[in-house]
This record gives sequence, C-alpha cells and structure tokens, in this order.
Amino acid sequence: MKNIPLILLGCGGVGRQLLQHIVSCRSLHSTQGLCLRVVGVGDTKSLVVSDDLLHKGLDDSFLLQLCRVKSAGESLSKLCDFGECRAIVHPEPQGKILEIASQLGRKTGLVLVDCSASFDTVAVLKQAIDMGCCVVLANKKPLTSSMEDFKKLFMYPRRIRHESTVGAGLPVIASLNRIICSGDPVHQIIGSLSGTLAYVMSEVEDGKPLSQVVKDAKSLGYTEPDPRDDLGGMDVARKALILTRILGHQINLDSIQIESLYPKEMGPDVMTVDDFLDRGLSLLDKDIQARVEKAASNGNVLRYVCVIEGSRCEVGIKELEKNSPLGRLRGNDNVLEIYTRCYSKQPLVIQGAGAGNDTTAAGVLVDIVDVQDLFS
Amino acid sequence: MKNIPLILLGCGGVGRQLLQHIVSCRSLHSTQGLCLRVVGVGDTKSLVVSDDLLHKGLDDSFLLQLCRVKSAGESLSKLCDFGECRAIVHPEPQGKILEIASQLGRKTGLVLVDCSASFDTVAVLKQAIDMGCCVVLANKKPLTSSMEDFKKLFMYPRRIRHESTVGAGLPVIASLNRIICSGDPVHQIIGSLSGTLAYVMSEVEDGKPLSQVVKDAKSLGYTEPDPRDDLGGMDVARKALILTRILGHQINLDSIQIESLYPKEMGPDVMTVDDFLDRGLSLLDKDIQARVEKAASNGNVLRYVCVIEGSRCEVGIKELEKNSPLGRLRGNDNVLEIYTRCYSKQPLVIQGAGAGNDTTAAGVLVDIVDVQDLFS
Repeated sequence: MKNIPLILLGCGGVGRQLLQHIVSCRSLHSTQGLCLRVVGVGDTKSLVVSDDLLHKGLDDSFLLQLCRVKSAGESLSKLCDFGECRAIVHPEPQGKILEIASQLGRKTGLVLVDCSASFDTVAVLKQAIDMGCCVVLANKKPLTSSMEDFKKLFMYPRRIRHESTVGAGLPVIASLNRIICSGDPVHQIIGSLSGTLAYVMSEVEDGKPLSQVVKDAKSLGYTEPDPRDDLGGMDVARKALILTRILGHQINLDSIQIESLYPKEMGPDVMTVDDFLDRGLSLLDKDIQARVEKAASNGNVLRYVCVIEGSRCEVGIKELEKNSPLGRLRGNDNVLEIYTRCYSKQPLVIQGAGAGNDTTAAGVLVDIVDVQDLFS
Repeated sequence: MKNIPLILLGCGGVGRQLLQHIVSCRSLHSTQGLCLRVVGVGDTKSLVVSDDLLHKGLDDSFLLQLCRVKSAGESLSKLCDFGECRAIVHPEPQGKILEIASQLGRKTGLVLVDCSASFDTVAVLKQAIDMGCCVVLANKKPLTSSMEDFKKLFMYPRRIRHESTVGAGLPVIASLNRIICSGDPVHQIIGSLSGTLAYVMSEVEDGKPLSQVVKDAKSLGYTEPDPRDDLGGMDVARKALILTRILGHQINLDSIQIESLYPKEMGPDVMTVDDFLDRGLSLLDKDIQARVEKAASNGNVLRYVCVIEGSRCEVGIKELEKNSPLGRLRGNDNVLEIYTRCYSKQPLVIQGAGAGNDTTAAGVLVDIVDVQDLFS
C-alpha cells in the first residue's frame, strides 16, 4: 500500500468537498494500492494536525466533522472539543506546516494541497518545495503573482499539479501539458473560461438586455456576490496567464490586455453593488446590443474569451464564427480551442462544466493521486 | 538527467514518426532533464539493438536512416551495412527483447513501445511486464483480445499507457482515467471514434448518395484500401471495448453489438473491393437515405457512434439531437461525450483529429515521458 501524506490548506467549499471525496474514495483508492493520509488541515487562523504524523492521518469521522464545523462557519479551534481523534490545533499554521514539511518532505513525502483563494500561501508553498514536498493547487493566486514565484513553484515540474486552476476539473492543463511534452507547437489558444460570462454572452446574443441577463445570472447563483468580480475579466485573465506561462512565456498579469464589461466609473470604489445593478448596468445595454447586432450582420457572434498567441495574451469580447465550437457555445460551459501543428485546421476542443466545488475538488483529488509515483 | 531506455516494436508510419519525434524533441526533453534512449527497434522479422545496452542507445542519425530504409519498404537487415552505429541485427526479435527486458527491466527500467498492428506482440508484452518493464501501446490488439491478456497487461496499472489506442493523440484515455480516479461515476459515453465514418455520415446527411460518399472518401485517402474495413465498424468496436474495459467492465469483443454499414452478402469473402464499390454500394443508397430523412423529420441526425452504458456497449448508427456536440460534428474529427456525476446535464466533450501518424505518434511520445517517475 502506497501511503501519501497530505496537508490541506483552505476549508472553503472546494477544500471541504475534497475531504469528502477523499473519504468516499477510500475503497477505490485502496484497490489501487493507495492510501491518502490527511495529516493536517488548515485555514487562515489555525492548523489541525494528526498527533502521530509519521503513521496516522486524521481519521475519516474527524474529517467529516471538520467539514460540518467549517460549513457552519465556525473556527477550526472548535474541533478541540471533538474527542475521538487525537488532533492538535495549532494557532500558527505556517510555522507548523514547515515543521511537518521538513519532517516528512524527504522522508516519506508530503503533498501540500492549496484549496484556498489567498495570496498568503505562496511563501509556505515555496519553502515546502525546497524541502522535497509536492504541491497541488486549486488556488490560482500562487501561479499568477510574480514570475519569480511561478518559476520557484515549477523548479521541479513533476512535483507540481494544478489542473483545477483552469476550467475546474476539465482536463485542460493535463491536455496542454501533453501537447507541450510531445513537442507539438501551440499556435493559438482561444478559450471561454468563465461560465458566468459564457452565459451572459449567449443570453445577450438572444436579444436580452445585458442588465436583465446579469440580474438573472446573479439570482441563478452564477455570479459572485458582486457580479463585477466576473464582469471585470480578472478571473479569466488569471487563468489565461497560467496557460500562457505554462507554454513557456514569461509574462505578468499587467501585460495582459483585459477588457472589462463595465467602465471604471461604475467600479466598486464608486458605486455600491445595488447601485450598479439598479442604475449602472442598464446604461451599458445599448452599446453591447449594438455590438451583438454588428457581429450578427457579419454572420458572427460575440464571446468573452482569452486569446493566446505566442506571448501575446488578450482577454475580452471577440467576434467569432457562429459555426465554431466557441460560436456554438450555449449556457455556462467552458470551451477551449487549441490550435497546434497536429490540430491545425480543426482545433483540439475541450468542453464542459468549468466551475463547481464537486468538479474542482475532483480535479484536485486526481492531481494528488497523479504524483504517487514520486512517493516510495 | 533521467535516462529512459526503450524498445520500439513496429516500424510502420506511426513507429517511424515516433522515432522522428524522439529525435526532434531531444533538446526539449533535455531541458526537462530527460533522455529517451532507443536501445532497440523491431519489425516482424528482426530487431536492431544498440551494442552497449546499458549505456548507449541507437544514435539519432542511425534512427533516421532506419526510418528511410523502412519507408522505402526495405528490411531492417539492410541496416547492417550502415557503418557508423555499432548496431546488431537479430533475426529472432522476441527472444532478444526478453533478454534485454530481463537485463534492463528491474535494473534501469525499460519501456516496450508497441506501434505495430499485430496480435503477436501480446506474449512478449506480458512477459516484459513480469520483468518490471513499462508498456506503451498505440496497438489496439493487445487490449482487445482476451480479458485475461487485458488483466495481465494492467497488473501494474501505473506501468501501462495507451493514449493512442483511442482517438490517436486526443487526450481521451488520460481524461477518462482522471474521471475514474476521482471516483466520479461514468453514466454514459457516446463517441464518434472513426474519422472515416464521421465524414461518411455528415456527407450522407447533406443528401449525397452513400456510394458516392464512400468513393470520395476513398479517393481523399480517408479510408483503408478496402473501405469495408472502416464500414464494418470493427475498428470502432475495438476502441469502444478498450473504453468499456478501463471503466472496469469485463467484456469481450463478441459481446459488443456491432452494426455494419454493409450486409454479409457484400463481405470481402463474397465480393472484390472493386465489385463492392461499383455494384454493391449503390444498392445501399436508398436505405440509408430513408433513414437520414426519417431522422431529419424528427429534427435529428444520424451518427456512427459507440454507446457505452454500464457494461453494455453498442456500435452503430444512432439518431442523435442535431443540437449536441455529436450532432453538430462535421468532417472527420473524433468526438467523445462523457456523462458523469460531475458532467451530468452537459457532458465533458473532447473533440479533434483522431487519426494521423503525427498525432498518434505524439500521443505515444507523451505516454513514454509520462512513465518517467517510475524510473530511478
């Protein structure tokens, strides 16, 4: 039985779903000769660790209890009361993580799994890499800060996995890495990497006013609490940056041209969310409808996409052929078209749900399983 | 530098393209700390091996010369004359392969790469597995013979890769394995896995007679020399069998319901290829056109697909929604729709060129690179 100790950072929706997946996959993984041992779980304030790091993980009933506690919005320290598992709650997560990393990193191996949405994990991840640990990320931030951080995290490329940073569990990174490894040069990537913006663009195409579509999307739970977090394009830009960087181009977020669907005058510093939804948005209806109609008159449609060509990366509304995988996109799927030497006339297309805790956590779980050959 | 010794079986189009890819990716792989060392290349009659198995591979100029010799339809023994590389040609490939496997298998590791289209490699592959070797297949036959052979080849699941057995280099197997590993139950797979039949069905949909479409496809080089090899559906059935088996279902080829596009009375035992093309095919035009029209009257289209649900696997013409990834398929791409818990309403879709030596060999190359962590 191959034993893979891991520490999970971040107990939000994805982190909790990951713990549930790990527990429910126990028997599947055991038939594959694999045991995922969760030795620690941390949030921003504390870290819960097993009391016998070398031999035992936190047990499954404890992990599920942890999910319930976090789901109820309570603190990890609450778990001290939970008697069955001899877990220790540490108030200084980072120091303790590095202590465990140095203990397990080279010895039995350790995977640091970052399901947070924070910039603050980068420091501990980089140090853990130096200590021989593997890193699995759902968190985009560590890969989209400085190029220096990115290079450090990829110092041992086999020890890092990050499928769920782009398109959730969709096999985007795995597929792109396969293409890169085969020496097949990537000519262009066009991708619709925001389910929210895909929904917005296809509804607007049907003639609905942007203001109405965004309100609908918000009430359907498709948007962030402040829909401007989606409409600004920053999330798409981060994903595009990750793709561009793994293609080998050393660019930063500020070298990406990002088109926001709302002007600065309607930004979060100027308007409240309610004001934006009630007053601001409707001022944008006419302009977007005119663009939709202009595209339609050319037989085309508008999609909010990233376009990557060489080291050039743009994010925004593009006019695309109606009769292409991206042009045919309806609803909130993600779609990626990859053009290479092997896929030159017709692209390689990957399409499917690109968001959701279930699929994101599934992607993380497979990444963990995928580093197993590095463990003795 | 990690050193991966490999033996290539099969010097047809895919095998030769693989050697060329290996040579042209030398510097790329070297930046990744990787060296693919081709210690032997075999066809059905002989095996050329490096004279210093433990330290040296056949050198690149020799490999390219080998490609030229085989491309000209000549025998590997011709290479004895090629002075620069001290290669040895063995007239009994299988024995020599096993000798090398026992020498390198457990010691430095060895990858057996099967790019042949033969049933005859199974025996040597199975023995090599026992000797600690890894196996990479483009050849479908070893995975579609008996269930016993299949189980044996998957005895150590991490040591076998076979991306190019289904959809050439498309990330079909990699994606499906990710889904399986995450515990996400697969409800249904529908796939158009023959570029030839995809072309035929979409042309027939446009109202062209089947007989004309098949002749066109043949002259475009889309079909086998005898188009019945495509039209019979056996190649699709083999791919479908591989998918069904990796989902964990123990079925054989003869339990798959296969619809042939031509009746037995027009089979290769009864009619010559020319007779089939000139007389036979046109007798089928009316029936297929009637089916196309019936489907159209329901707002649907016909596609030649495999449908996998549980252990049930069918291969043939199905009436599908026009407005689905498979329904929208034009030309000769492969398309796979995978429905799972995570992808329940909208499937995970993978689409792109599913044939061609370049992409098939690229898939094989990545599989070889992908087993690197098993090598010390």
